[in-house]
Amino acid sequence: MTNSIKKSILVSIIGGSGYTGAELIRLISRHPYFTLFQVVANRNAGKKIEDIFPHLRHLNLPDFISFEEMIFDDVDLIFCALPHATSQEIIIKIPEGIKIIDLSADFRLEKVQEYEKWYGQKHIAPLLQEKAVYGLTEIYKEKIKKGSLVACTGCNSAATLYPILPLLNDGVINDDHLTINLGAGVSGAGRDAKQNIIHAEVSEGVKPYNIGKHRHIAELEQEFRKAANRKIDITFIPHLLPQNRGVIVSIPLSLSAFLVHKTLEKFYKDSSFIIILPIEEIPATQHVRGSNYCHIGVVSDHANDRSVVISVLDNLIKGSAGQALQNANIMLDFDETSGLLESPIFP
Amino acid sequence: MTNSIKKSILVSIIGGSGYTGAELIRLISRHPYFTLFQVVANRNAGKKIEDIFPHLRHLNLPDFISFEEMIFDDVDLIFCALPHATSQEIIIKIPEGIKIIDLSADFRLEKVQEYEKWYGQKHIAPLLQEKAVYGLTEIYKEKIKKGSLVACTGCNSAATLYPILPLLNDGVINDDHLTINLGAGVSGAGRDAKQNIIHAEVSEGVKPYNIGKHRHIAELEQEFRKAANRKIDITFIPHLLPQNRGVIVSIPLSLSAFLVHKTLEKFYKDSSFIIILPIEEIPATQHVRGSNYCHIGVVSDHANDRSVVISVLDNLIKGSAGQALQNANIMLDFDETSGLLESPIFP
Amino acid sequence: MTNSIKKSILVSIIGGSGYTGAELIRLISRHPYFTLFQVVANRNAGKKIEDIFPHLRHLNLPDFISFEEMIFDDVDLIFCALPHATSQEIIIKIPEGIKIIDLSADFRLEKVQEYEKWYGQKHIAPLLQEKAVYGLTEIYKEKIKKGSLVACTGCNSAATLYPILPLLNDGVINDDHLTINLGAGVSGAGRDAKQNIIHAEVSEGVKPYNIGKHRHIAELEQEFRKAANRKIDITFIPHLLPQNRGVIVSIPLSLSAFLVHKTLEKFYKDSSFIIILPIEEIPATQHVRGSNYCHIGVVSDHANDRSVVISVLDNLIKGSAGQALQNANIMLDFDETSGLLESPIFP
Amino acid sequence: MTNSIKKSILVSIIGGSGYTGAELIRLISRHPYFTLFQVVANRNAGKKIEDIFPHLRHLNLPDFISFEEMIFDDVDLIFCALPHATSQEIIIKIPEGIKIIDLSADFRLEKVQEYEKWYGQKHIAPLLQEKAVYGLTEIYKEKIKKGSLVACTGCNSAATLYPILPLLNDGVINDDHLTINLGAGVSGAGRDAKQNIIHAEVSEGVKPYNIGKHRHIAELEQEFRKAANRKIDITFIPHLLPQNRGVIVSIPLSLSAFLVHKTLEKFYKDSSFIIILPIEEIPATQHVRGSNYCHIGVVSDHANDRSVVISVLDNLIKGSAGQALQNANIMLDFDETSGLLESPIFP
Repeated sequence: MTNSIKKSILVSIIGGSGYTGAELIRLISRHPYFTLFQVVANRNAGKKIEDIFPHLRHLNLPDFISFEEMIFDDVDLIFCALPHATSQEIIIKIPEGIKIIDLSADFRLEKVQEYEKWYGQKHIAPLLQEKAVYGLTEIYKEKIKKGSLVACTGCNSAATLYPILPLLNDGVINDDHLTINLGAGVSGAGRDAKQNIIHAEVSEGVKPYNIGKHRHIAELEQEFRKAANRKIDITFIPHLLPQNRGVIVSIPLSLSAFLVHKTLEKFYKDSSFIIILPIEEIPATQHVRGSNYCHIGVVSDHANDRSVVISVLDNLIKGSAGQALQNANIMLDFDETSGLLESPIFP
Repeated sequence: MTNSIKKSILVSIIGGSGYTGAELIRLISRHPYFTLFQVVANRNAGKKIEDIFPHLRHLNLPDFISFEEMIFDDVDLIFCALPHATSQEIIIKIPEGIKIIDLSADFRLEKVQEYEKWYGQKHIAPLLQEKAVYGLTEIYKEKIKKGSLVACTGCNSAATLYPILPLLNDGVINDDHLTINLGAGVSGAGRDAKQNIIHAEVSEGVKPYNIGKHRHIAELEQEFRKAANRKIDITFIPHLLPQNRGVIVSIPLSLSAFLVHKTLEKFYKDSSFIIILPIEEIPATQHVRGSNYCHIGVVSDHANDRSVVISVLDNLIKGSAGQALQNANIMLDFDETSGLLESPIFP
Repeated sequence: MTNSIKKSILVSIIGGSGYTGAELIRLISRHPYFTLFQVVANRNAGKKIEDIFPHLRHLNLPDFISFEEMIFDDVDLIFCALPHATSQEIIIKIPEGIKIIDLSADFRLEKVQEYEKWYGQKHIAPLLQEKAVYGLTEIYKEKIKKGSLVACTGCNSAATLYPILPLLNDGVINDDHLTINLGAGVSGAGRDAKQNIIHAEVSEGVKPYNIGKHRHIAELEQEFRKAANRKIDITFIPHLLPQNRGVIVSIPLSLSAFLVHKTLEKFYKDSSFIIILPIEEIPATQHVRGSNYCHIGVVSDHANDRSVVISVLDNLIKGSAGQALQNANIMLDFDETSGLLESPIFP
Repeated sequence: MTNSIKKSILVSIIGGSGYTGAELIRLISRHPYFTLFQVVANRNAGKKIEDIFPHLRHLNLPDFISFEEMIFDDVDLIFCALPHATSQEIIIKIPEGIKIIDLSADFRLEKVQEYEKWYGQKHIAPLLQEKAVYGLTEIYKEKIKKGSLVACTGCNSAATLYPILPLLNDGVINDDHLTINLGAGVSGAGRDAKQNIIHAEVSEGVKPYNIGKHRHIAELEQEFRKAANRKIDITFIPHLLPQNRGVIVSIPLSLSAFLVHKTLEKFYKDSSFIIILPIEEIPATQHVRGSNYCHIGVVSDHANDRSVVISVLDNLIKGSAGQALQNANIMLDFDETSGLLESPIFP
């Protein structure tokens, strides 16, 4: 990765008033080469960013603008942090030549039929879909480097794919069915007010949701199939956890911990952010909170031909805004770690 | 269930200064027929209960005493809420004829060799072990009725066994291996100060623990084998959750939700506390908090020949003190619900 | 307190789908003499209560109905748990002769001008206002007994008034200005989705709100003036706390702890629910959670002519549904503690 | 502030296994000019830092050593993050010429008699005390620049002093008594296991502590007296909050919000980290979490000649490790913001 001295890069954000938008602003403000030029938030256009995000008050930020007010000249890169469906509508309006990092689900599924099946609506930009690169950074780095539109991986999918894809790639996993037990912090549900995420509903409790229906199943199936060259059935059990940040995935495997660990350690040996813990060490979401790191642990099960692999990441960073920035670094030929090396905040 | 003899029953608690002890005191204080006579807590002997548990201040409670000060005459029943190993040492000193409900792990494993393997020490009361009844109430009601020593089920085990035993009993499950994903609130780790349970370590995070090593695996294997008449392998993945109360278990099954649901509904149709939710409804720990209820949900998986069964209970009540009281009611021929009908506290 | 006429009393709830409504349902279901007849919730009319409150699933409850469907014959008492303004509109439609306990703010202020000033709208039932009794139970017991419409105290007001009114009554406080530091759990903000109460906004943080503007100031000023026979200025500093239940009030006083403690102990010596802790002991909200108890502590300050009085209660119980039930017991001549003696749930 | 290009500065930490130590390590690892040379932690000597703090695993850190193993040659600066009393014992053993930043309470009180009164033990380094500079950065910058031993302010004191000292300095406050209502996150109590800070005791509740006895009163009195040239009496009401990080202070004042706001805005107009919010805006701890910023808000009270001033900071950063690093920057003539400009992490 070349770290050539470049002129400052002008970036814009579309969809700046959600949690992911705020994280993008925060991370970009500390990036050595990126300058934040415009932040679009249609509902908040004209407002100061600090009125929506008081924690960013000390930054010298431009006010929110509407998409109509956006200026595209000189913009090198746009981060699009809109809800799915809205994202496609906006992205088809962006002039060609500007690199786009999309954080929504709109361009993650290679087959638009899959999109239509899981998201229940017609895809309006199938031609753009063909150009989109799936943004799971460590796996698709070479494609991302050449891409013009990167579709960032969902936070739950990223936490699941990092430990499993290398095992499927290498043919280590023989099973045709995997159980993915997942826990996700509340911030993954966004900042819009909904009864099921108010504090009194969530705190001091845990509740599974969308079993058998979660849309990230589509991404997982796509990527599992590509890696394994066969269909892998998935039982996906997501839980809403009483915490703000963090995704944890634990997956039982009919494989020895040693083999799993060796395979993952080899695959990620040069990775800056995917850290394979020493064998038998168990990761925790609080140890990656606020950072772009993903910790993966491999633990022997009771019976020694079985093991459990566990991965944790911060859904708003490695699962979203940090992943997007890492992809942007790669697209623009910067060191992929630029602006992303802050350590986790613990406790 | 007849609640015939209505004279007041004198009960004592040994091990009253932990969370389980406090819950026993709280529940017994509202029991229509039980009177709390003595509360033993060696380390706190001589202290007022309200100095250790200010939330019980309004009750007119006796001071903590030491085991040496205990009076056994007229005592009908003793609840023993001591740590494992300590429990056996005390219980062998209790005069015969007094019914005992033990909340520790000391008498849960029918084979003392299993105890010695999992708990790493010699069992000092193997003869008492032979008399002990495993206290999983709804399953062993008839044995408990006639028992003199009941060994209450661990909270994690109870949450796991309730949904699974009826399926094994009926031969519905064909698999020889089950994956048990479990989340447990912090109160299950007790009230003794340990670094890993201080607020700053636990809150805003989730961490698996004791994968492949958790001692409740021994209980689960014992009960699974008895129900299925064969060995069932277990992958047990417990997580420490950032909440005080609650155990949640989610178990993927290679069975249709319909069959699982029908079997469980039939088995628990007359149960006062085990509630089978309508099919496809997902339970949550916050909906049983502070109560003796256990909610079980059955949900179809993505592929329709698979399903996920989920159970939730309050570890300190249905998983411990409430279960103990329910067993006591049964042993003494009261209605099993006496003193246990309070609804969950939500939010 | 005589609990003479023991026939079952038919009660109804209007506004049953908020947290206060749920607590009323829960408490009434365990009341020895009250039977829950109807639960009105216009937006949820026709739905099962368990669909809105899964934690009440085990109770054999009637479905929600609309106000139009309500039957008034045989109803002895109605609890009205609606938002302010809506409450008056409904209460004027209730046939005379039915006792009403209103949990809203609509009838708390004796002067309708004050209502109009603080709530920014015309009071539409000024004649009813004249009949309303302020429902601060321990202070107004005699009036409540004879009342037909009781306006329950706000949770923040109750926590503030309990420690202060006896001191003003007795002329112990000479100051004309009091500082009231208050912390309140999130459930006090209700169950309607609002961005400021979603988990990610509230947890792991504390934020003051409505300083100098909180509507409970009006109640406090009214009651302070009545007790002291002069105007007492109030600096009221409420904080939103990252917890579901609990109100805490701490008030610095230019009085010795001894005098404050003696006055409060004397005043509440026969109270069932207001507990004055031993002098110098500090209360905590977690020690009254889930109960109708209010703990009050008096602590010496650094300089010994000063002290701090602290009170804690559960906003949904002693601050709302429990207070309402206690008032109902008094109005209907039952023992005031009926259905309210459950101990706090800790931890 | 000169930001001259300097050679790398070698720093060491004594007391590296507490939360403050971990924050020092984290911040120093990102400092542009500081290199972390040694981390002393006697109880953990020989262990890897990542075994104690898994969130710092990705950093290439030296193992913990004992104080005896420490090398002083070439060390420019030592951060001492030990408990009080232990700190003095160690600091007197450090060779002269090495600059020391002490994070304990040992050198905060100018008069050793005050130390002995509040901390209940003899001060063993009274001569060092004479050289110590009180480390409240924005107030004592000039003294810190020339100091050899800086005694960092306690987190609660810092949050209190920032809004009040400028008002006392300017003679704006006429009162001789101030009420300081404070809330503090659990991490301020350290990482050693104590029953009162385990999750089940703290979460979902709030409890005042040490009213009239908190040792930070001594610091506050000292600094108030110096600023006002008279004794200011303090009523200090600290609360333990159910959150990990954050200190909030709210102080009622008999002054108009306008005057308070103007005075503070003028005083801090060039400050990098003390941010005065627009008048009437209320700060929140979650908006400074994980950062070195302190937000101060000034709000009008109900009566318009009164106001409330509120300040918030992260106890582990601006209240401790960040403050220490800022002081180190000043002592060594770097820009005071070096390594400290990360934005808060929200949510």
